[in-house]
Amino acid sequence: MIIEILTIGDELLSGNVVNTNQSYLSDKLWLAGFQVEYHSSVRDDASKIKEALLLAADRADIVLVSGGLGPTADDFTLEIAAKTFKKKLVLDKNYLTYLERLFTQWGRPLSENNKKQAYVPQGAQTFMNKVGTAPGVGVKYKKAHFYFFPGVPAELKQIFSDFVFPEIISSRKEKIFFESKILKCFGAAEADLDLALKDLYINRLDIENVRIGFRAHFPETYIKLSAWDKDAKKAKGQLFLAESKVKERVEKYVYGEGEDTLEAVVGKLLIEHKKFLSVAESCTGGLIANRITNIAGSSSYFLGGVVSYSNESKIKILGVSADTIKKQGAVSPQCALEMAQGIRRITKADYGISVTGIAGPDGGTLGKPVGTVHIALASEKGTKEKKFVLPRRRDWFKLLVSSLALDGLRKELLSLG
Amino acid sequence: MIIEILTIGDELLSGNVVNTNQSYLSDKLWLAGFQVEYHSSVRDDASKIKEALLLAADRADIVLVSGGLGPTADDFTLEIAAKTFKKKLVLDKNYLTYLERLFTQWGRPLSENNKKQAYVPQGAQTFMNKVGTAPGVGVKYKKAHFYFFPGVPAELKQIFSDFVFPEIISSRKEKIFFESKILKCFGAAEADLDLALKDLYINRLDIENVRIGFRAHFPETYIKLSAWDKDAKKAKGQLFLAESKVKERVEKYVYGEGEDTLEAVVGKLLIEHKKFLSVAESCTGGLIANRITNIAGSSSYFLGGVVSYSNESKIKILGVSADTIKKQGAVSPQCALEMAQGIRRITKADYGISVTGIAGPDGGTLGKPVGTVHIALASEKGTKEKKFVLPRRRDWFKLLVSSLALDGLRKELLSLG
Repeated sequence: MIIEILTIGDELLSGNVVNTNQSYLSDKLWLAGFQVEYHSSVRDDASKIKEALLLAADRADIVLVSGGLGPTADDFTLEIAAKTFKKKLVLDKNYLTYLERLFTQWGRPLSENNKKQAYVPQGAQTFMNKVGTAPGVGVKYKKAHFYFFPGVPAELKQIFSDFVFPEIISSRKEKIFFESKILKCFGAAEADLDLALKDLYINRLDIENVRIGFRAHFPETYIKLSAWDKDAKKAKGQLFLAESKVKERVEKYVYGEGEDTLEAVVGKLLIEHKKFLSVAESCTGGLIANRITNIAGSSSYFLGGVVSYSNESKIKILGVSADTIKKQGAVSPQCALEMAQGIRRITKADYGISVTGIAGPDGGTLGKPVGTVHIALASEKGTKEKKFVLPRRRDWFKLLVSSLALDGLRKELLSLG
Repeated sequence: MIIEILTIGDELLSGNVVNTNQSYLSDKLWLAGFQVEYHSSVRDDASKIKEALLLAADRADIVLVSGGLGPTADDFTLEIAAKTFKKKLVLDKNYLTYLERLFTQWGRPLSENNKKQAYVPQGAQTFMNKVGTAPGVGVKYKKAHFYFFPGVPAELKQIFSDFVFPEIISSRKEKIFFESKILKCFGAAEADLDLALKDLYINRLDIENVRIGFRAHFPETYIKLSAWDKDAKKAKGQLFLAESKVKERVEKYVYGEGEDTLEAVVGKLLIEHKKFLSVAESCTGGLIANRITNIAGSSSYFLGGVVSYSNESKIKILGVSADTIKKQGAVSPQCALEMAQGIRRITKADYGISVTGIAGPDGGTLGKPVGTVHIALASEKGTKEKKFVLPRRRDWFKLLVSSLALDGLRKELLSLG
């Protein structure tokens, strides 16, 4: 089954937006055991759209088309498609009724432009858009099955996952069940994970119908697992087997799965153990606190943070000894220890995290080069400190250090059992 | 001149990475007055690559190809290209010498795999890669000029901007000079800017050879201006005219241009006026401090921040009165005022910024719904406070509020003259 993704829009060809619909659809299909063969994009131009539709009809079995279904004058993908496929555009009365109800709910009149959105090529399927107004549309031409989506990512995602994805799955010649999982890893590069797992890949070992892929998401790497079988239970079993085999080798890097983030996992563990957290940041400049507070409900375990960018703020707010800074410097194990203990004491937290380092590009010395950082964790058990040297771009350095700090706390919380 | 961008790589068709090379190249070309007509992508598969090259040769004049130039076994784009174009792969001795020197510098032996990278199709141009090892390659087939780039974005960007872009510019039939500029705006949505500028668009008013485009980058909008002319001075004049006309209408939203960021512009103004800044954040959770400290050298004007997520930290660290929180709540004008004054006082800063609000999704009440936020700015002139109600997704809310706070300070600094 050859799949093509055709994305339509001036904004793509002018480089005004990055094409995330392409990667979203490709990823979902890959996880279900498919392989997309063609990505193509053209402008909102009638002749270019026609050309692209005809090319896709010739080379693909399934064509996912996004863009140009909106209510405005330059949204005419379905008009061109109908002409190209030699079909009439006809009113879908059910969809019109749905739109009328929707606009009544919103207290707005249904404009002629929006009414236009209920017209679809004759014989087409109409898929309900629960986010916006343009329906998804399925229509056959030659041997190809075309599915049209609005270009707005949230609308495309809903229509794809609710209607089109299940239909594609069930259109496999053999009835196949698939299971997939994304394991999220921190602390190992893609190349290291690849090396550790290489002999597990498809057709190499004893796990049939399993694919392993990687997605780099600095500073993390995701392991994509996909398993399929004619038997639903067997597919589940294959995925479970693959996951076990992967974890056997790299479990210490896996912090979560699916939609998990490091900060969400840490949050869950803090709630589970009824612990409170505070942070004292120097070189990460607030990024750790920012990540923690990206999680809804974090106010139930996060007490606060201090971004002690100056020596004075370290001394005055956190109570770091002036002597420590004078003799050992602000980037030193002792300063990190006192920062972590200080923020824990001031806020009466169970855990105090601190980081102090040199983000660069300036400020390094021979003994303390750019990328030097000390991370400390204070708790009732005492205070631990660890040094790293991570010469990276300033923003990558901050991100990596914030992940190291969060992962350190995660491991500490796991050790509580 | 018809331009196609062909990106090659399994990682694209499996949705493991988002295709940023496409949007980068399209954007740069748009700014130079070109319009890319085709985006296409295929896997690292010999037959699919050949098919894509032949299709591009038939429909485009310039084809920018990225991916598959690396040293490993699945990097064979140039091999396939040579076969498809019926040319031999020949050793570029100059490039080999360059690679040998490079590896000597690195103290590593030049492997056979890397040596392979010095082989290019007969008659091709070789462009030096200053970031990695694979050269860029230019080669003609039929009426099309193909340019091959490594898929690594930093390598592609260097080779494109150093060599290929100037060559494309100079290959225009008429010698044309172009000038472009990106104006960065905050405080107006794309639709508002579009409406305000609509009648300035090409062929509508008196600015010929000028294009205006928009790029949405929440919570900001960028205005893309591109002007061209056979006469270099006239192109500059046209751009200047376009910029003036745009600014006449929307100047209050324009905070910078090109690579400027709101936090960098604020940083420059603080340095210029020799002022020091501190921040006290509640609902933004450290994001403001994080953005400020993303700028290299920010330690010369940023003293520190407090993320006062709990009431206790507001009282204990910032000196907010317990009475204020009890009677008016933590999300109140008075609390914002005291937070801003507190952080300014503690750190002895010229400016103290504070934000306190309800990021949601929970925590809202009838009188203080989710999205309510107070932003205050304390200085020697006194303290100002402003209330906003911005019901948004949690991460968007944080981002928008941090931009409002930074933009408020920017305007205050501008008022110093």
